[in-house]
Amino acid sequence: MKESVLFWPVHLKGRTLYILDETKIPQRIVYLKVRHYHQAIDAVVTMKTRAFGQFLTVCYTFMLEMQKADGLSAGAQMRLLERVAAAFNRSRPTFPFEEVTGMVLGVARKVSGSPMFRQDFISAMNGFLEQGIRQKRYQRAQEAAALIKDGATVLTHCNVSGELPLVAEFCRKAKKKVRFLATETRPYFQGSRLTAWELKREGFDVTLIPDNAAAKVMSDGDVDCVLVGSDRSAANGDFANKIGTYQIALLARHFGIPFYVLVQSSDKLSSGREIPIEVRRDEEILCFAGRNLAPEGTAAFYPGFDVVPHQWVTKHIAIHAR
Amino acid sequence: MKESVLFWPVHLKGRTLYILDETKIPQRIVYLKVRHYHQAIDAVVTMKTRAFGQFLTVCYTFMLEMQKADGLSAGAQMRLLERVAAAFNRSRPTFPFEEVTGMVLGVARKVSGSPMFRQDFISAMNGFLEQGIRQKRYQRAQEAAALIKDGATVLTHCNVSGELPLVAEFCRKAKKKVRFLATETRPYFQGSRLTAWELKREGFDVTLIPDNAAAKVMSDGDVDCVLVGSDRSAANGDFANKIGTYQIALLARHFGIPFYVLVQSSDKLSSGREIPIEVRRDEEILCFAGRNLAPEGTAAFYPGFDVVPHQWVTKHIAIHAR
Repeated sequence: MKESVLFWPVHLKGRTLYILDETKIPQRIVYLKVRHYHQAIDAVVTMKTRAFGQFLTVCYTFMLEMQKADGLSAGAQMRLLERVAAAFNRSRPTFPFEEVTGMVLGVARKVSGSPMFRQDFISAMNGFLEQGIRQKRYQRAQEAAALIKDGATVLTHCNVSGELPLVAEFCRKAKKKVRFLATETRPYFQGSRLTAWELKREGFDVTLIPDNAAAKVMSDGDVDCVLVGSDRSAANGDFANKIGTYQIALLARHFGIPFYVLVQSSDKLSSGREIPIEVRRDEEILCFAGRNLAPEGTAAFYPGFDVVPHQWVTKHIAIHAR
Repeated sequence: MKESVLFWPVHLKGRTLYILDETKIPQRIVYLKVRHYHQAIDAVVTMKTRAFGQFLTVCYTFMLEMQKADGLSAGAQMRLLERVAAAFNRSRPTFPFEEVTGMVLGVARKVSGSPMFRQDFISAMNGFLEQGIRQKRYQRAQEAAALIKDGATVLTHCNVSGELPLVAEFCRKAKKKVRFLATETRPYFQGSRLTAWELKREGFDVTLIPDNAAAKVMSDGDVDCVLVGSDRSAANGDFANKIGTYQIALLARHFGIPFYVLVQSSDKLSSGREIPIEVRRDEEILCFAGRNLAPEGTAAFYPGFDVVPHQWVTKHIAIHAR
């Protein structure tokens, strides 16, 4: 099946990591060339990559640093990986960097006694990404497609890292018509720039709406189900996703519309209350494309995420980690 | 009391109408110079003026045309006013142009037998605008201020045509602290460009949030009441306002937060279902400041307004027409 470039937005080739610069879409498809983990951290903090792209960036950055570490002892290699982990853990609050780096360090420790430590680590990580992640994302997309009825209109918010075109493709294979309503998703416009772009590119039916029109399209009877992704989930099924997901879930509940979420299941946190919410810089809502939307110095509050309680989720469509 | 420039954004001086170009705020305060009613219609269609500005534009455009009509017979003057009315009635669907032009034609017909038709019409209109509108808006702002408790945070959406700083000023006079949360109000950014701008300019406490954060700030307990304006109301108390007002009202109801609306009462329509909803051009959500947010040709749906059912309104704060 053809994949959206957003489905696997990071690639490691030799000693260079290529990270899709999502801020340049839809104008251009450009990859940042990363040769040192500090550059990878920077791509995360400035949101050049996000969501699943962050996950891949973490995994591949460890592999990149190991590619370059041929002159180091196994102990020094392990310490290097620990520095990389610590740097990612400090980068952004809501995404579970600690879980991901902890998992990768676990893989490293398992093979650290081997005389082929570097090669074994890289090969174990490649296996994990292909079998543990790529294949499971395909399964999850197929599961989601099975929930969508023929002729349905699916409302989505933000961007599910290239998985929505795959869901649409599974619907097409099953001869089911599906139409998407994508919220534009201020302030980063993931809906306009990424979701509408990738769905249109693959020939699927997508209509963009302002975030403010979600309740209107629901009350007009134009939404059959909601399907969103998740940036972090808790053991009880609460999950955090892009700011605005919470109000869409509440509206869906009011209108009796099924609400589905694609999650990576996790049991590190017991409930959504424990998920830290990143507050982004005021400038990100005060300016756009170099133009001031509000006078300089205006106070702003831009929480990057909100948490949807598990009771409002009709079905979690999960990848179970390892 | 000092008025926001948005409180009375249109002025007639001699044979020129000055319409505040709201699209240039916050960068500049610029007035369009209008000498013919076609230019006034254009300012309405392109949303250079909006909401209460549209109301003033209609009233003053009739007065402008009468200023210029000194060479015409009374019959020809009346026919001119009817052409102006017909042109406004065709301009945009949701705002009640027919009600406003009908009211103005009524004023004209009342004095059309007078030998001083032009002067009497202009003087009657001036009286109506000063006593019937400006004074009543002051009273309405004072009534709204009385509902706000000391220390309250008021969430607002879009822009209430300069009336919010007046509400804040009445609170200040009553020694009540008030803080505003303004949604940015995509896609036209009235919240960022107008509401935050005018409140900050007059020294009031305002914080801008993405439209997507409304439910989050409510669930965090950060909102004591909602106060919005209205573009059109029905006899049963339903009202239309900028797209997104409906979902804010629904969220407020869920969280038990009082929801107040400043309306011009009207009994022309029996319920909100009869209010026609303008659908704006796709480009208005696909582009911003000359930059494409989504690929060209992406489908979009941008209803300019939505309708809040009267049951969700805690209190209507009304101006009763005439």
